[in-house]
Amino acid sequence: MSDVPKAISIQEEGPREGFQIEKGPIATARKVELIDALSQTGVKQIQVVSFVSPSAVPQMADAEDVVHAFKASPGVRYTALWLNDRGFERALACRRLDLAASVTLTASETFLKRNQRRTMAENLAAQRVSISNYKTKGIPIESAGIMAAFGCNFEGQVPPQRVIELIGQVLEIAAEQDVKIKKLTLADTMAWATPASIKRVVGLVRERYPDLRITLHLHDTRGMGIANAYAGLEMGVDSFDAAVAGLGGCPFAAHAGAAGNVCTEDLVFMCQEMGIDTGIDLEALIAVARLAEDIVGHPLPGSVMRGGSLDALRRRRQ
Amino acid sequence: MSDVPKAISIQEEGPREGFQIEKGPIATARKVELIDALSQTGVKQIQVVSFVSPSAVPQMADAEDVVHAFKASPGVRYTALWLNDRGFERALACRRLDLAASVTLTASETFLKRNQRRTMAENLAAQRVSISNYKTKGIPIESAGIMAAFGCNFEGQVPPQRVIELIGQVLEIAAEQDVKIKKLTLADTMAWATPASIKRVVGLVRERYPDLRITLHLHDTRGMGIANAYAGLEMGVDSFDAAVAGLGGCPFAAHAGAAGNVCTEDLVFMCQEMGIDTGIDLEALIAVARLAEDIVGHPLPGSVMRGGSLDALRRRRQ
Repeated sequence: MSDVPKAISIQEEGPREGFQIEKGPIATARKVELIDALSQTGVKQIQVVSFVSPSAVPQMADAEDVVHAFKASPGVRYTALWLNDRGFERALACRRLDLAASVTLTASETFLKRNQRRTMAENLAAQRVSISNYKTKGIPIESAGIMAAFGCNFEGQVPPQRVIELIGQVLEIAAEQDVKIKKLTLADTMAWATPASIKRVVGLVRERYPDLRITLHLHDTRGMGIANAYAGLEMGVDSFDAAVAGLGGCPFAAHAGAAGNVCTEDLVFMCQEMGIDTGIDLEALIAVARLAEDIVGHPLPGSVMRGGSLDALRRRRQ
Repeated sequence: MSDVPKAISIQEEGPREGFQIEKGPIATARKVELIDALSQTGVKQIQVVSFVSPSAVPQMADAEDVVHAFKASPGVRYTALWLNDRGFERALACRRLDLAASVTLTASETFLKRNQRRTMAENLAAQRVSISNYKTKGIPIESAGIMAAFGCNFEGQVPPQRVIELIGQVLEIAAEQDVKIKKLTLADTMAWATPASIKRVVGLVRERYPDLRITLHLHDTRGMGIANAYAGLEMGVDSFDAAVAGLGGCPFAAHAGAAGNVCTEDLVFMCQEMGIDTGIDLEALIAVARLAEDIVGHPLPGSVMRGGSLDALRRRRQ
């Protein structure tokens, strides 16, 4: 287990991942309340909103209002997601956000065609334009991402070699424009990863691109989230996307199959018990997870928010 | 990963673990329906009931009726749990059960005193009497168990060395009566285990007692169940207790902190995707998990029953 890192970074995606799938209305003030509470937990990066079409995702129609209302805490990066130029322009107009950009390819052409109506070649060309666009606007390009890196509902298991090729392509289109990418997100977009495939793919990527810092973006649709994170830790991965309370998923039948991100406080709990520093106050985060449940008004998938931390039990004994 | 087994055994404990915590009444016929459905999935061992005090656990008052009504399937072992002589006599009277006995010590004296009103020494003496009693009745003593092997809500982390000592004691009281114990269950009774402590404790036990076949009994209270099972697999563990749909736990606030066993179909899913044979038909088991939810009348914690298997998606593509 010598590869297990001593410390990890967690990017909190709960406010963005969670609220966008909720059916009922959630007041802007309550979204802001969650972000402000997260800011007090020691989390260093929070993705607060996505700038997407209000007709497609009505829950994110108030993105600008949310961005203008939260209390920025020193040392915390506040980021946003966008999927096209219009979204990027909206993000750019909100001066409070940290707009480090990401260039993302997708390991499944079928998924890409359905989701973004592009072939692999068209998407690569579009990313090349995005890089140029970011450079013109002075936005740093921080990371590359590979979506559906472990498998796809339409194409099945993704060959790890394809992931390696796509990483090569994205590094190349960046290098063409003198951009050096240092970080790579491997996203298990459709929850196909298992601990074994995490080890296989991460191992291959590390071997081929030892200088890239890998982030895992894991979904818990099939209950593998924490086990996959553990497999990542064993492979030396020290950066994870996660969502407080498992926001984005829901155990209710009405949201059947909803794919929550791996739960932040469950991940923090595991790390803390393994002696891995996250910089996050677990008890504070558990309180935020309960707040998240109160805000969405239904149970969320997190476990430690229900079972409690072990430190709380240890303290009770003293 | 060379220690990962090619095949594992799963002991299904859903009917016993699950129904005993339910508050509302569940008809005997529906309990039998679940057992009969499980019998058709390829599961080789099912713990069908516990023989405990009907006043303490009203849900198990119909244990005899359940045992007499299920359809025994060839090749499936049907077992039961008992905690004292009275329970054992009731189990013995049901001639349909496979009564291989287990001798169990507990790694926390505080927990033992609260739960069974015994000191460690008194419990050891009681187990010595049980062995003698089983021998007299012609009941084979198949396994030893260590409860709270990873930690205790009252005593905190359990030193792995204590687990080693207790295993030595239980093997010794068995050997005194010419009983050779071949199997050992390490039970994470209060959900203190993490993948790291699983590796530490299992590693130590395997080093000291390489001939004992280890079973892990894992609770998912803090969301570590599947990750802990994965850590066990990596350590060569090839036997697990599990509960279909995660019966025994519940995501509802009314059952806050309820500690379900690791979910059988989630475990089977992970094994199947890792190429580990379980002998179980995952799709059939998912159907039983949905039946379990229907029987208890509220959501259960399983994930794959909601997210679906990957094989189902692979077939849809063909």
